Amino acid sequence: MRADARCGKMARFLASAGIMPRPDQRPVGVFDSGVGGLTVLKAMREAMPHEDLLYLGDTARLPYGTKSAASVLRYAHRAAEHLIGYDIKMLVIACNTASAVALDDLQRDLAPLPVVGVVKPGARAAVAARPAARHLVLATEATVRLGAYSRALAEIDEHAEVSEMACEMLVAQAEEGWTEGAVAEAIVRAYLDPVLGSAAKPDSLILGCTHFPILRGVIRSVVGADMSIVDSAVTTASLVQERLRSGGIGGAAGRTGSLRLLATDGGRRFAQVGGTFLGEPLSTEAVEIVDI
Amino acid sequence: MRADARCGKMARFLASAGIMPRPDQRPVGVFDSGVGGLTVLKAMREAMPHEDLLYLGDTARLPYGTKSAASVLRYAHRAAEHLIGYDIKMLVIACNTASAVALDDLQRDLAPLPVVGVVKPGARAAVAARPAARHLVLATEATVRLGAYSRALAEIDEHAEVSEMACEMLVAQAEEGWTEGAVAEAIVRAYLDPVLGSAAKPDSLILGCTHFPILRGVIRSVVGADMSIVDSAVTTASLVQERLRSGGIGGAAGRTGSLRLLATDGGRRFAQVGGTFLGEPLSTEAVEIVDI
Repeated sequence: MRADARCGKMARFLASAGIMPRPDQRPVGVFDSGVGGLTVLKAMREAMPHEDLLYLGDTARLPYGTKSAASVLRYAHRAAEHLIGYDIKMLVIACNTASAVALDDLQRDLAPLPVVGVVKPGARAAVAARPAARHLVLATEATVRLGAYSRALAEIDEHAEVSEMACEMLVAQAEEGWTEGAVAEAIVRAYLDPVLGSAAKPDSLILGCTHFPILRGVIRSVVGADMSIVDSAVTTASLVQERLRSGGIGGAAGRTGSLRLLATDGGRRFAQVGGTFLGEPLSTEAVEIVDI
Repeated sequence: MRADARCGKMARFLASAGIMPRPDQRPVGVFDSGVGGLTVLKAMREAMPHEDLLYLGDTARLPYGTKSAASVLRYAHRAAEHLIGYDIKMLVIACNTASAVALDDLQRDLAPLPVVGVVKPGARAAVAARPAARHLVLATEATVRLGAYSRALAEIDEHAEVSEMACEMLVAQAEEGWTEGAVAEAIVRAYLDPVLGSAAKPDSLILGCTHFPILRGVIRSVVGADMSIVDSAVTTASLVQERLRSGGIGGAAGRTGSLRLLATDGGRRFAQVGGTFLGEPLSTEAVEIVDI
């Protein structure tokens, strides 16, 4: 039995006996193919400023969204194994494609380490925002091919209708920082106008790629005020917080948690593009390059 | 001394003695990060329909254009070593980023195997089309960072003026097949309008990424009829043909050469997107997946 499982068991015992568990200061590990997952990291920092967070962007292998499931599974295992070397207490897959492909595998292989993905939290957020809705999932080609959102939504809302759309250009657009203006809107319209003008117009939009939240403004301007728009960042952060609490592996409240950023390639680009996603400027020196 | 060098030496001797060399039926190896290099392959097939061509798209590691030079160099070496396993008689780096990063290294390490890149042929084509021009190179971030076109142009035309622009969205746009229409034009305009309206308006445009030739139509509609637009596909094919001839390692004329396509990931996507670049439909079965 690993340390985290022993710790969790003991914490649950102590909590049930009315005794507070000792804070667990090990970091939470988070990984993504690149910078998109920083939108999830940002939500986690806001929800849990006292936790130490360790982020790995697998920039040497990005994007995952156009790769085969076999490759993405291999990459996800490598990233997870690397983070485990830092004695993490939980693993967060902050990438929809990797969650769709690898969550079940990683949960099984890494047990008892808790592993959280972003697809189920995203589906839950969408159903909470609008039950029995007609959802349109905007995602990468690989996520769409796997139909992970359709399955996750069907499990929690039998009245939900779901369609999924691959929007590779939006990934590039988010990376390029084209978040507003006529061209940004024209690209979003190229994907959405045919659906918005159809009889099967959705009333709920799920941002099924962690790159897309930074395009929320321009997407909103295209779909209008009535459409529900959800992403999984905030819901994933809530789920992580809940799992840390119930597992008795939360850090000490009140302290200021650290943030450590790792990338497998190109620290300069990571810092430059990643700042937009994290919502604060990043310096190249703040990014450690690791070979995994 | 390797077989090809011996063969080349003998061929030159026989040719100088007025005796025709024996045709060399070994394949020409071509590699790119993905499907972009198929524009070069297409030009090679048209120029040398009798040669056997072997193409490797390193789709598991694409794109190269946003990766660090160290990573691209490592990937290029792996791709080259894989192709050498097929007993190729020449290696063509059909990717601007890999040419900018790895050409000198591969020429040195693989000698006497002839290695041809696309940057110098592209520069030569641009100078031939318009000497003493003001060139604008559209390329990936990595190619621009390395300034390979600026150096190549300076070497052959001291009166050339050069500026380079990273256009990552055009790579995604080409992959997505958005080759015409208002949105395609708006994206191209987002990059080019500021330059076209400036006092330093270029009179020569170099398509410094093998993805961009399929966007030639929409680029032409934006820049107008007077601008010279060149890519390296046809010039590279001519250089390959000339090097095969001078090295005495050309195949037998009159026969129909074979085409073999290898990819490191995602044969389905390779076939689907690659068909546009090669200019003919490709089936998934036509693409062999290799692990390098």
